[in-house]
Amino acid sequence: MTAPPASRVAVLGVGLIGGSVALAARLRAGAHVTGWDPDGAALAEALEARVVDAAAREPAEAVAGADLVVVAAPVAALPAMVATALAAAGPETAVTDVGSTKSAIVAASVDERFVGGHPLAGAEATGVRHARADLFEDATWYLTPTSATSGLLLERVHRFTAALGAVPTHVDPAEHDRLMAAVSHLPHVVANVLVAQVAEALGGERLPPTGPSFRDATRVAGANPALWAQIYAGNRDALVERLDDALGRLRDVRDQLAAGESLEAWQAAAGEHRRALLEVGLTGGPRTELRVAVPNRPGVVADLALTLARAGINISDMSLSPSPDGTSGVVALWVAQDAAARAHGLVADLGFAVT
Amino acid sequence: MTAPPASRVAVLGVGLIGGSVALAARLRAGAHVTGWDPDGAALAEALEARVVDAAAREPAEAVAGADLVVVAAPVAALPAMVATALAAAGPETAVTDVGSTKSAIVAASVDERFVGGHPLAGAEATGVRHARADLFEDATWYLTPTSATSGLLLERVHRFTAALGAVPTHVDPAEHDRLMAAVSHLPHVVANVLVAQVAEALGGERLPPTGPSFRDATRVAGANPALWAQIYAGNRDALVERLDDALGRLRDVRDQLAAGESLEAWQAAAGEHRRALLEVGLTGGPRTELRVAVPNRPGVVADLALTLARAGINISDMSLSPSPDGTSGVVALWVAQDAAARAHGLVADLGFAVT
Repeated sequence: MTAPPASRVAVLGVGLIGGSVALAARLRAGAHVTGWDPDGAALAEALEARVVDAAAREPAEAVAGADLVVVAAPVAALPAMVATALAAAGPETAVTDVGSTKSAIVAASVDERFVGGHPLAGAEATGVRHARADLFEDATWYLTPTSATSGLLLERVHRFTAALGAVPTHVDPAEHDRLMAAVSHLPHVVANVLVAQVAEALGGERLPPTGPSFRDATRVAGANPALWAQIYAGNRDALVERLDDALGRLRDVRDQLAAGESLEAWQAAAGEHRRALLEVGLTGGPRTELRVAVPNRPGVVADLALTLARAGINISDMSLSPSPDGTSGVVALWVAQDAAARAHGLVADLGFAVT
Repeated sequence: MTAPPASRVAVLGVGLIGGSVALAARLRAGAHVTGWDPDGAALAEALEARVVDAAAREPAEAVAGADLVVVAAPVAALPAMVATALAAAGPETAVTDVGSTKSAIVAASVDERFVGGHPLAGAEATGVRHARADLFEDATWYLTPTSATSGLLLERVHRFTAALGAVPTHVDPAEHDRLMAAVSHLPHVVANVLVAQVAEALGGERLPPTGPSFRDATRVAGANPALWAQIYAGNRDALVERLDDALGRLRDVRDQLAAGESLEAWQAAAGEHRRALLEVGLTGGPRTELRVAVPNRPGVVADLALTLARAGINISDMSLSPSPDGTSGVVALWVAQDAAARAHGLVADLGFAVT
């Protein structure tokens, strides 16, 4: 048993996500949590419900003395709030966020103490009263370190998210945004289009009973307009690219259908794609530890994590041991046993000694 | 308690749907069921599992003596199979089908004994071994009578589907196909596009863990290629129209996003559409009986049913009592209490006496 990843945590923004981070940090990671929220009533409710141990009047007051700060603000408010947190935080404090898009906030927050984050968790309900300590259980939690990121603080954020029950997963910020555009933002846009065309085609005159495929395909239509408008805008370039791609594919199939061509092979190919996508993330299995000697400078651990991520190798656990003089250290990385040889080779190619 | 709607039923095609019709007809509607299937092994399995009471060697043998024939063949095979059933059936036998598109089969089967049908039920699994007597429980079962349809036989099919646990719902064949294009066929096409763009964007290199919205939006991607290629082709015109509509909407939102406009109002409108659509079909509530005196000729009951359907009024139950001389009759229609006055007016406008 190692020490808890963070003993004092600040959470800025105690809605559904921030409140759940606070609860899980208290109940699962044994941390003391100070919360702050621009909405005084929400903050009072969080304190009353013991979602947080203490409530601060200002962000700087919450951040003072924290090992780790989690900024859980709407996407558009993140850059200013992360800057406030970094300004108030000490040199050894990690700052992370939970925003759904990452390129903009990472570009705006170049600091060795900052690690972008994005838990794939949420619910239809919003607000601190729906906060749950198990919201992140087995959820992917993307971390987007860069060449500026401190290895020690990256390790802390990684272990913190794992302590909340999540599966921390390293990814480049731009790749994260492209991925989210494809697997989340485009499906939300498409769901809106599907409900709009049905509603308008029926002219409000008669709304029919529908099968399950329509419910499934449109479950997220119209979700939280203020939040989603920010997410779309925050990932504009990647989402426009995905929309153009989808438009091209829909035009192709429309033309094939109109020309009387059979869509059977196209339908079968989609089935293959779906099976391939659904087989993902169901691996588990035994793990192997790689120990890597690294110099103690920002970006080194991030580089290791991202190199493995790009090769499809996830780091299920991470532990960093600095040398006594603080100039170097050893990073222990746990990866799937069947990926260990490949990981060993990739790390060695970066010029590091692996044991 | 009225008499069962049909005492001898023939089912042509004993796969998942046909097998479930047969099972439900035996176990819930008390009918004797004779099955036939072009696949002798499937038919033997249906008999062995007592999905059917008897197995026929030819369609005509199954149809002989039946009150009601259900044709459960793939969409492309329906016209020939329904024609075979009608040729073999007696003058008092109702013939219906379970195809997912209706305009083509209805146009190909102009006969007072034919009623197009489409239960909104199915499962990922196919084949008679997955047949279930409760597959149609509370499912919408569209019926598409025309001006050629016998009222007596329409009533029989209506009561038969209700006896299977379904909610029979009358609709014009062309409107059915436009509706299915919007709520089912387009969502299937879109699901295929979503998985294809993710799979190809990732180049098979790294398939990421994804949130629930992607799974929900793509649950039906690549479903049963042979079946769905026929459904797309069988509803070509309506589906091309829906695709053109969706393409226009996606282009609009793409252009607004690229121009830096906020999508908040658009997202909110989609939420309103979704709420309106989801409030559908959850009405229930008390029913009122309307008794309508009608002449006994084909198309009259169909006209009543479709007139109410176009006004958004569903007929939850229907009973037809011919006069002793067979020239006229009384149709009892049960409709929602709060729609009764409107239904009364619509029926009176058609020139019929209502009590």
